[in-house]
Amino acid sequence: MCKMELLAQQAADAARKLRSISPECRAGALKLMGDKLISCKAELLKANAADIAGAGDISPAFKKRLTVDEKVFDYMVKRLQEAAALPDPVGAVLEERTMPSGLQVRKVAVPIGVLAMIYEARPNVTTDAAAVAIKSGNAVILKGGSEALRTNLVLAEAMRSAAREAGLPENAIQIVNSTDRSAVADLLKQDKYIDLIIPRGGKSLIKAISEGTRIPVLKHYDGICHLYVASDADAEMAAALVANSKCQNVAVCNALETLLVDRSTPQSTIDKIVEALKENNVEIRGCAEFCSRIPGAILATDDDWDTEYLSGTLSIRMVDGIYEAMEHIASHGSGHTDGIITTSEELSSTFIANVDSASVLVNASTRLSGGGDYGMGAVVGISTDRLHARGPVGPAELCTYKWVAVGNGQLRK
Amino acid sequence: MCKMELLAQQAADAARKLRSISPECRAGALKLMGDKLISCKAELLKANAADIAGAGDISPAFKKRLTVDEKVFDYMVKRLQEAAALPDPVGAVLEERTMPSGLQVRKVAVPIGVLAMIYEARPNVTTDAAAVAIKSGNAVILKGGSEALRTNLVLAEAMRSAAREAGLPENAIQIVNSTDRSAVADLLKQDKYIDLIIPRGGKSLIKAISEGTRIPVLKHYDGICHLYVASDADAEMAAALVANSKCQNVAVCNALETLLVDRSTPQSTIDKIVEALKENNVEIRGCAEFCSRIPGAILATDDDWDTEYLSGTLSIRMVDGIYEAMEHIASHGSGHTDGIITTSEELSSTFIANVDSASVLVNASTRLSGGGDYGMGAVVGISTDRLHARGPVGPAELCTYKWVAVGNGQLRK
Repeated sequence: MCKMELLAQQAADAARKLRSISPECRAGALKLMGDKLISCKAELLKANAADIAGAGDISPAFKKRLTVDEKVFDYMVKRLQEAAALPDPVGAVLEERTMPSGLQVRKVAVPIGVLAMIYEARPNVTTDAAAVAIKSGNAVILKGGSEALRTNLVLAEAMRSAAREAGLPENAIQIVNSTDRSAVADLLKQDKYIDLIIPRGGKSLIKAISEGTRIPVLKHYDGICHLYVASDADAEMAAALVANSKCQNVAVCNALETLLVDRSTPQSTIDKIVEALKENNVEIRGCAEFCSRIPGAILATDDDWDTEYLSGTLSIRMVDGIYEAMEHIASHGSGHTDGIITTSEELSSTFIANVDSASVLVNASTRLSGGGDYGMGAVVGISTDRLHARGPVGPAELCTYKWVAVGNGQLRK
Repeated sequence: MCKMELLAQQAADAARKLRSISPECRAGALKLMGDKLISCKAELLKANAADIAGAGDISPAFKKRLTVDEKVFDYMVKRLQEAAALPDPVGAVLEERTMPSGLQVRKVAVPIGVLAMIYEARPNVTTDAAAVAIKSGNAVILKGGSEALRTNLVLAEAMRSAAREAGLPENAIQIVNSTDRSAVADLLKQDKYIDLIIPRGGKSLIKAISEGTRIPVLKHYDGICHLYVASDADAEMAAALVANSKCQNVAVCNALETLLVDRSTPQSTIDKIVEALKENNVEIRGCAEFCSRIPGAILATDDDWDTEYLSGTLSIRMVDGIYEAMEHIASHGSGHTDGIITTSEELSSTFIANVDSASVLVNASTRLSGGGDYGMGAVVGISTDRLHARGPVGPAELCTYKWVAVGNGQLRK
């Protein structure tokens, strides 16, 4: 038996044991996981310093992602403690009815089983993923970036010892202690034991993983997010929403990438939006019509409409009414987050009914399409899949369900 | 563009148009589909006779599956009409809350998009699948068995003309008009347009399909279903439930395959169960202990515990208490349908909490783990997957959801 098969089998055993562990016990474990992290802070920072030193000549951005500073440390502890206090999704009765036969039927949320998280440099994903997995009663196998292995080992040991002390099977949380690339390949073969793989990282990582396994993969692909400014949009609100959607954090999947402006929008509204973007040093690439209305804008190429910049660039296209806007979103969007800015009930209803994205927003920043702002608590990411979980993935999305039917001798006729 | 790509693209166009079609309009189309079937009955029976003649030297069982007789015809019409009357799943608000920021967040059921059904001889799957697809606002591509093509073409044309007349895009229902094996291979490549494949048929068909495509596949694998008779079970009820679970229809996925009998069960209860099985000509393969208690029983081999007989054979094993029973189910079951027969609340609670099957039953026939007996109306099958849909798959399970968030200028801080 290879090392990854053993790990996966241990996870499956833990998942089975987790079924009879109470929500209170799991919440207690999460709280203790936070406490244990505080106890091993010095050791953790030392391991992290060793990781950074060992990574060699890395870019400042990569170094930032790899680093556990005070802010990241506090965040990790807080996420574990907050997860402890969240409502427990396991055992929720999703549907319930008594059939004419007297059969009492209910649909009950249960954990998926064994999750495998495959991710890159950020050590906080280790604690985030463990928090959401334990909250939803799942066992989790963590495979972080090789550069962060020392840090992740300290985090995992702290969380495992908390799990053990709280009465959970310690293999509810396991880490792949290897920097060997074949470890991931071996992990992807464990379809007998692993129920779901959640890769977090670039498109190429996700693609490679989903093509290399028979295990279901929850994909978090790119967000080519749009806002459509209708001609009746409030100018101040439009400028604030566009600037916030684009600039609050340019490097994330729910940042704005393309702005669609209705052809009949007053020039004064367009000027206000452009002014807000310029204040934030956004580079604008406009369609020909936009460039003719805003002197000095760069002309966009066809590729711009299909690009997730993840940087301070925004493409802007003038459109002839809401249907042209929705057509553009359907053709060029990635179904992640798309919104409308309007004062018209009719336009917002049309937009909501016809735009088929994981998040459809009206008069709100695209940056709000996440777990926290939707009231979901901790999340492991934003799914771009259509099946099982769409949009933010929190503890409830990491559950499946079973049907329980209680009778008193009912037969099939 | 190959023929299957065109078909898939047309389905995607239809799926997009279906988004703005009202539930009433879809229900009207379903009713009209039933009416149109009645109008073309003579033509349908003629085409079916030609299919049967063309199939050549086929087994009686295969011929039965291929045949549309009066009973099958009435069933097909009834399923379409019943689907029209079912509650509509699209647009259902699954969650709803207003966040402290004032953002109104709701999770709304929407169609998955484009479904492809790949199945074998039975022509009624053509109407069943179309009924459930249209009920859930999806476009569907139907690929039935080659032997049934003439029959399926008549069915599809009737349903398409009804769709057109009722105001639906006619490509909401399309049939693969080909007996060429490459058609399925081409269909499996259309991941740009097809959102979900539902194969219905033997394990090898399902396996080949899910390994040959990047499109998500909703799998309907085998049901190695168990009943555990606790020592306190009512003898009459146990005998009736075991006989019904095994014999009501031996050839289906929720038929009983293995009976687990508690070692402390009174001999009189065991005798009553065996008597009921013998009345139904069931061949019993027992463990050594069972054979020692019931003279004349055939000794089971190791393979028996992992076999889905789909025939009049039942394996019976004596177990030492509920934990051994649950251990057997975890090791040998397929997670489809497993039940307990007991008068004890404590035993039934333990069983419900620890058995992780799509359907967990207490004092009810395994044959009840279907859509109708759970109050779900029309279903296309019983999923053995853990993700998205588990157990019976009806219109609600063929929906996904989107998040709709309505604000008045909310920003991310």
